[in-house]
Amino acid sequence: MAELPPAHPFDHDKLKEECGVFGVIGVADAASFVALGLHALQHRGQEAAGIITWDAERGFSSAHRFGYVRDNFTRADVIASLPGQIGIGHVRYSTSGSKGHTQIRDVQPFFGEFSMGGAAIAHNGNITNAAALRRELIERGSIFQSSSDSECIIHLMARSLQRTIPERMKDALRRVEGAFSVVAMTRTKLIGVRDPLGVRPLVLGRIGEGWALASETCALDIIGAGFVREIEPGEMVVISEGEGVQSFRPFEPARPRFCIFEHVYFSRPDSILGGRSVYETRRQIGVELAREAPVEADLVCPVPDSGTPAAIGYAHESGIPYGMGIIRNQYMGRTFIEPTEQIRNMGVRLKLNVNRALVKDKRVVLVDDSVVRGTTSRKIKEMILDAGAAEVHFRIASPPTAWPCFYGVDTPEREKLLAASMSEEEMCRYLGVDSLRFISLDGLYRAVGEAEGRNNACPQYCDACFSGDYPVAPSDMIEKGFRLKTAAE
Amino acid sequence: MAELPPAHPFDHDKLKEECGVFGVIGVADAASFVALGLHALQHRGQEAAGIITWDAERGFSSAHRFGYVRDNFTRADVIASLPGQIGIGHVRYSTSGSKGHTQIRDVQPFFGEFSMGGAAIAHNGNITNAAALRRELIERGSIFQSSSDSECIIHLMARSLQRTIPERMKDALRRVEGAFSVVAMTRTKLIGVRDPLGVRPLVLGRIGEGWALASETCALDIIGAGFVREIEPGEMVVISEGEGVQSFRPFEPARPRFCIFEHVYFSRPDSILGGRSVYETRRQIGVELAREAPVEADLVCPVPDSGTPAAIGYAHESGIPYGMGIIRNQYMGRTFIEPTEQIRNMGVRLKLNVNRALVKDKRVVLVDDSVVRGTTSRKIKEMILDAGAAEVHFRIASPPTAWPCFYGVDTPEREKLLAASMSEEEMCRYLGVDSLRFISLDGLYRAVGEAEGRNNACPQYCDACFSGDYPVAPSDMIEKGFRLKTAAE
Amino acid sequence: MAELPPAHPFDHDKLKEECGVFGVIGVADAASFVALGLHALQHRGQEAAGIITWDAERGFSSAHRFGYVRDNFTRADVIASLPGQIGIGHVRYSTSGSKGHTQIRDVQPFFGEFSMGGAAIAHNGNITNAAALRRELIERGSIFQSSSDSECIIHLMARSLQRTIPERMKDALRRVEGAFSVVAMTRTKLIGVRDPLGVRPLVLGRIGEGWALASETCALDIIGAGFVREIEPGEMVVISEGEGVQSFRPFEPARPRFCIFEHVYFSRPDSILGGRSVYETRRQIGVELAREAPVEADLVCPVPDSGTPAAIGYAHESGIPYGMGIIRNQYMGRTFIEPTEQIRNMGVRLKLNVNRALVKDKRVVLVDDSVVRGTTSRKIKEMILDAGAAEVHFRIASPPTAWPCFYGVDTPEREKLLAASMSEEEMCRYLGVDSLRFISLDGLYRAVGEAEGRNNACPQYCDACFSGDYPVAPSDMIEKGFRLKTAAE
Amino acid sequence: MAELPPAHPFDHDKLKEECGVFGVIGVADAASFVALGLHALQHRGQEAAGIITWDAERGFSSAHRFGYVRDNFTRADVIASLPGQIGIGHVRYSTSGSKGHTQIRDVQPFFGEFSMGGAAIAHNGNITNAAALRRELIERGSIFQSSSDSECIIHLMARSLQRTIPERMKDALRRVEGAFSVVAMTRTKLIGVRDPLGVRPLVLGRIGEGWALASETCALDIIGAGFVREIEPGEMVVISEGEGVQSFRPFEPARPRFCIFEHVYFSRPDSILGGRSVYETRRQIGVELAREAPVEADLVCPVPDSGTPAAIGYAHESGIPYGMGIIRNQYMGRTFIEPTEQIRNMGVRLKLNVNRALVKDKRVVLVDDSVVRGTTSRKIKEMILDAGAAEVHFRIASPPTAWPCFYGVDTPEREKLLAASMSEEEMCRYLGVDSLRFISLDGLYRAVGEAEGRNNACPQYCDACFSGDYPVAPSDMIEKGFRLKTAAE
Repeated sequence: MAELPPAHPFDHDKLKEECGVFGVIGVADAASFVALGLHALQHRGQEAAGIITWDAERGFSSAHRFGYVRDNFTRADVIASLPGQIGIGHVRYSTSGSKGHTQIRDVQPFFGEFSMGGAAIAHNGNITNAAALRRELIERGSIFQSSSDSECIIHLMARSLQRTIPERMKDALRRVEGAFSVVAMTRTKLIGVRDPLGVRPLVLGRIGEGWALASETCALDIIGAGFVREIEPGEMVVISEGEGVQSFRPFEPARPRFCIFEHVYFSRPDSILGGRSVYETRRQIGVELAREAPVEADLVCPVPDSGTPAAIGYAHESGIPYGMGIIRNQYMGRTFIEPTEQIRNMGVRLKLNVNRALVKDKRVVLVDDSVVRGTTSRKIKEMILDAGAAEVHFRIASPPTAWPCFYGVDTPEREKLLAASMSEEEMCRYLGVDSLRFISLDGLYRAVGEAEGRNNACPQYCDACFSGDYPVAPSDMIEKGFRLKTAAE
Repeated sequence: MAELPPAHPFDHDKLKEECGVFGVIGVADAASFVALGLHALQHRGQEAAGIITWDAERGFSSAHRFGYVRDNFTRADVIASLPGQIGIGHVRYSTSGSKGHTQIRDVQPFFGEFSMGGAAIAHNGNITNAAALRRELIERGSIFQSSSDSECIIHLMARSLQRTIPERMKDALRRVEGAFSVVAMTRTKLIGVRDPLGVRPLVLGRIGEGWALASETCALDIIGAGFVREIEPGEMVVISEGEGVQSFRPFEPARPRFCIFEHVYFSRPDSILGGRSVYETRRQIGVELAREAPVEADLVCPVPDSGTPAAIGYAHESGIPYGMGIIRNQYMGRTFIEPTEQIRNMGVRLKLNVNRALVKDKRVVLVDDSVVRGTTSRKIKEMILDAGAAEVHFRIASPPTAWPCFYGVDTPEREKLLAASMSEEEMCRYLGVDSLRFISLDGLYRAVGEAEGRNNACPQYCDACFSGDYPVAPSDMIEKGFRLKTAAE
Repeated sequence: MAELPPAHPFDHDKLKEECGVFGVIGVADAASFVALGLHALQHRGQEAAGIITWDAERGFSSAHRFGYVRDNFTRADVIASLPGQIGIGHVRYSTSGSKGHTQIRDVQPFFGEFSMGGAAIAHNGNITNAAALRRELIERGSIFQSSSDSECIIHLMARSLQRTIPERMKDALRRVEGAFSVVAMTRTKLIGVRDPLGVRPLVLGRIGEGWALASETCALDIIGAGFVREIEPGEMVVISEGEGVQSFRPFEPARPRFCIFEHVYFSRPDSILGGRSVYETRRQIGVELAREAPVEADLVCPVPDSGTPAAIGYAHESGIPYGMGIIRNQYMGRTFIEPTEQIRNMGVRLKLNVNRALVKDKRVVLVDDSVVRGTTSRKIKEMILDAGAAEVHFRIASPPTAWPCFYGVDTPEREKLLAASMSEEEMCRYLGVDSLRFISLDGLYRAVGEAEGRNNACPQYCDACFSGDYPVAPSDMIEKGFRLKTAAE
Repeated sequence: MAELPPAHPFDHDKLKEECGVFGVIGVADAASFVALGLHALQHRGQEAAGIITWDAERGFSSAHRFGYVRDNFTRADVIASLPGQIGIGHVRYSTSGSKGHTQIRDVQPFFGEFSMGGAAIAHNGNITNAAALRRELIERGSIFQSSSDSECIIHLMARSLQRTIPERMKDALRRVEGAFSVVAMTRTKLIGVRDPLGVRPLVLGRIGEGWALASETCALDIIGAGFVREIEPGEMVVISEGEGVQSFRPFEPARPRFCIFEHVYFSRPDSILGGRSVYETRRQIGVELAREAPVEADLVCPVPDSGTPAAIGYAHESGIPYGMGIIRNQYMGRTFIEPTEQIRNMGVRLKLNVNRALVKDKRVVLVDDSVVRGTTSRKIKEMILDAGAAEVHFRIASPPTAWPCFYGVDTPEREKLLAASMSEEEMCRYLGVDSLRFISLDGLYRAVGEAEGRNNACPQYCDACFSGDYPVAPSDMIEKGFRLKTAAE
């Protein structure tokens, strides 16, 4: 099989969103729309994708495939095998923690047959008490078919005494802790739910006489759907062709804590999150960074592609010219056979090249979105210096990433996070650059529109990866030995 | 088979380079280096690639594959089947004119066994008298195995009475007209040749004790080779481990006419052509364009990715803010099944999305590298207006493309070129934009460093696609009915 | 994907066994043995195969693949992914009744995680009350992942209150009706069970210090295991490395009714069933047939390959020379593109050819194992006559197949069985042959060693496909409207 | 890729025909007929197949694929890519002597474009002066694209001064030595040629208004074509729609020497060779063998499948019962991962199993077609004895194979042929059987209808593999050091 190109040039050295969800009701050929929506959400998960539809004649149909949406769900035979006017889909990224390889049966959406009919469900996020729930369900006779935590939801629904699928789903989700944006379907209803804190995004769109649910607005754009509104934290919407959109509030009310890293890196720049353009937020981060951490320099360069909007903002605010000092290879490869005569930094060279003529003898500000392990940053610095740059100054569009995420993002173990064990100054020495500055947490809050910065008494966002302040206790992880931040830290 | 993602978002509406060549001698595992070099040249041809090596034990080994280098030449078994310290390779793009589909036997490098030993040859460019040569060779008993014009060179060599392969190659190339940069090899020699006008690029690099030849310097960068110099127009270099680089001049001297479009679009921005950074030239085109065709506006946006450097230059010179108004989908797909409820401009949506929040109510300057058929430009304009832009002004980083190229570039027939039948004003109306301006031919010459602009008496570059001034008569095409520009035009 | 060659030349016109099972314990590299065992049982199911093993380090590992064992389970990476000294496997044939296509999740063995550990299970046969059980289990909250009836067993086990897996399996199997030979495993135990009537075969073998269970003895032969004994009807064996083979009797005692068609067609001729060589039984059927239905003729020909032993017996008993009048193409294809100029009986020609020189002007006795729809028999007759045979006499090595099987064999609906609506004489006219004779039911019983023929009061075998006498009521099918034989029929 | 099952259970220990050819003219959808014809000839070569057709609109079309005809040429898209009413095809077996792996460009038919139009050619046999011809052609400027000797014919044709393709083919074939049955085509003509000795078969058939050429009559049967006659040794037929079949005699007359091994093993038993049924000849060999080498025994068993007709003959003549003591696995696999606990004779077990119940305590006559290296014979003997046979007597349906074939058959080097260095008695001891007898050369001649046996003065057949009497000097091989039989031997 042809090898998949990596999702991002520095794939292995980034936090990675684990999922994207999409659903549609009330359109002919729902599967074609779901395929397009998932394609637009491909950046949220590249390992595998699945689609389930329902049609009066064929009942529920499903297809789950490893690889890109464009390689699997562009085939007429696959789409023809998914008839119906209602459908949901999912793209997934494998979690680093999984033992061994993902099996196709781990790929969502999951399907369950209940006595009142079938339901399919897909979710973006992570259930923090999944291990405990799983143990309890097995004890009572449930058979799990996947290693995925999300399967818990289906089993909880199967055991509910409620008479309708939406009511069973409420029952089930009330037992579940963590971050989740769910898209589900029955034969006649499309359902969307966000957890009480609204950690992961979920938006509602209108297409002709039908409706769509998607992780991001960019997936509405691709199908020509209009953006209606976000599903609210703690809200469940049940959409049917007859009754339109009905809204429920199954959970205890809570203050929202949307993931701030969606603004920094996960979401696509052309999406709208919480009423704000992601691109504009990132540009604004660059502006804040230029104010917080100015430097004398000749050139502002983004680390492509995610550092680009912040670099544009930094250049604009600082008045230093903006230029493409690093060129990304559009045909990135994950691996090549390394010749015996070793090539320095070959892994990075496969993905980018320094624009030598541009950076030579210049003092260069490199703007990147985040530093995770730091391995790639070191190599980029080396390449820039090899090309003759006079100075290298790193400016990072997020605070130091010092804590793992347990809400649906693939992060290394804490000890592998550079910022978990080093101060900014130590990191600067470790990376060997002339200066290194991260945006402050308050600066980041300002960039997302909180003029006063972070409200420490009652933070407006989930920023656990920077602050160690986890809004939902990661109970499974604590059981496995994870140590929360102490008051002293 | 997984479908290949397109080379470029507007693939079908661009001129396309047809080939890239690479060769190396004097390194262990030559094939690994060739694979890397071809990967760096992938933008010059995505349809297929081939590598030939030579090794004392195994003799000549070859592998030719359809698809990306990263998908075929990253496998250990493939590279292991190509042993040796000398090797050459080729990436190709299919020509629009070919009847039916490319066969694997059309993929270069070609190999020929002569009485004094074997030779392999790959070339970038196009032989303008190939049809006539082919007829003559068949008449005398040569059997062609491919539809490729390049095979003529091998047959001409086979019939030469010279005693060495380099001498036979000189014999052969003297019979050939057109544009060609050749990389060839025998058991002990790596050979590079550029046609007398030097239409296509070819550079020499040094790697350890060995040498490399490549279409562009970016392919030297990826293997860590140093850039030595360009092969000169009309020069042949014969490189062997013992004698190093020997230089010959097999052709009648001529004034060089390097392809100016390599600067505009074909070459990678991180390559150096004729001593100039391609990125810098493109940025300078933007600067010239801002001077020649200023406009009141709120935002300068590149059409990604090739319009980016010129947009940066335009923004800098004009003082209008630069922004990413169009976001490219990193997981581009060529085709999806279109739902019954048609999606407007679906083809373009698969590849990019408008950053609605950024362009809304703005007067937008869109900077693109060229306009070929104009079909994509219209769709982009529509998407920008749908997103609420107040005005759309197109600025094009090359003069109107009014003539086909016969020197190794895939161009539509003349009647399909928008500029062949419309004036700038007519094109503006056709595209439905508020203004449309192309850089002037003189402006382009200034941007590539000719302060005085084009020397019409004796032009410094080949610019036939803009000017209709063909430096080598396209004799096969004329035989087929192509009409050259008349004095009156 | 390369198309699978058909299992048998007249695939679509045969009853088909649906499954084969195999298990092994106490050997290094259990998966290699299971793969070999399944290869030897490939004739029992060609659609898909699965293997599950257990290893202290890796836990349970599984691989399920569509296609032949030889194409999927001969790869070192697949076998290496299945470590352990205990393993079970399954080959399956798709049932004609399934709606749409088989999904990979329908492929056995199935796995379930219970609170006391995991278990895997595979079965050959059919559960006749599966639909009712499934309904009941879903009502109580079980989630089915496949359309396979066998999954019921896992869910019944999950809900059992017993403390050990073998005890839970007893609980589960007591709820199940129908025909089943089960092979199952826990981390330390290999388990085999046959239903009370012992409809499907299951044998025990010894290999070194380990043990094997298999549907047929030919699967013991391939791994060099010695044949120990058959698992008895209604017996459960639990095999562990420490305690060897323990035998249990979980069911109410019943008179055995082994499937007589296993002797006629399903099993391989080199297997031993009930102490009798299948080959020898088939040869003896030919002998009986020659006695019951003699004819003046010049040549006895088998319809290859399954008719061969009976043809040898018929020729020997009758004294008529035996010859290969029909030659099977060893590279059978399922489909070719039929040219516009239609080829008569193309489907049959792809698979066999008449040995024209041999049959010309001869009176030919064609010996086949069974007649199901009769379509193939007609075509073979036509080809034989086209080749110039003087007469064609069909002799069939089983009685008329007039009733569908509900015990794990894929049979057409009753109305499609030729013998369901025609007498022997009508069939003879329909097939257009000079004579047609089936062996009598008593003759068949004599051939399998029952010197007195069938004991109608208390039949020794299950012969429902011939007699309509179903030893276990097919309750799901009756619910769907299947009408049992009335006393009058 | 799914692994190809072997052509024959003892593939590696048999002489192997290297090619089959097929051509058709004057039918709609010629490619479908060619595909069917090649499928019927698949036993003559399983490595790869190719088809070329011609159509007024598309010109010449071709497809060459590795693997079985049924896997590649059953796809509608492949056949649709081969339009026309005339077409030829080829199946090939790789020769053991080729350095490295076959390339797709080595797969016939070959195509050449001449000044008067194109021609395609495929051949069965071997050119014994190919190396010398190749050297000479390269010297004069021909470029070879394959390692196949057959390509010489195309180059010789290209250099001929004749005006028509048939005349050029005569010119070319007169320069060629060895054994060849050629099928070729131009835009309007189907051409067939047999070498002067007629070593390889070639037959002519009639289908509707069209004509077919095939290596064997079984390929006429599959398309429903009538058998007209054999092409005669030294004959060339040129068939066109207008003028029907024209016959030419381009060579010096010679006494025919048809390959006697085609009767013994290569051809299908349902083919007619030289007016004789292959099946009947093989049965007759068994009869002769029973006369020449009788033995007291209880059972005559064929080594499946090729030994079957001779075993039937032996049983009939001797009166010893015939039985299937060895059962072939219909799903043969080439390789499985061998478990650590080694399985004896695993390679053979994958392909066959002894019918233990049948052979136990019996004196068994095993009839096989030939003994090449003897390795498989030893293993079969062991399995039969392990199964409890009392005695094992080998009877071989051909004389000892003591010399390699240079006329299109893949044979081991002489030193690897058991009979090259051992007498019958030594072989008997080496194989460890109770007796071993080969049919005599005269006996074989009698079985093919030469009542007087071999005419040593002027042998009726080519029997070089038995006699060392080569009718055409293998000049290339002699140059490489092969030593012909001396008068003393």
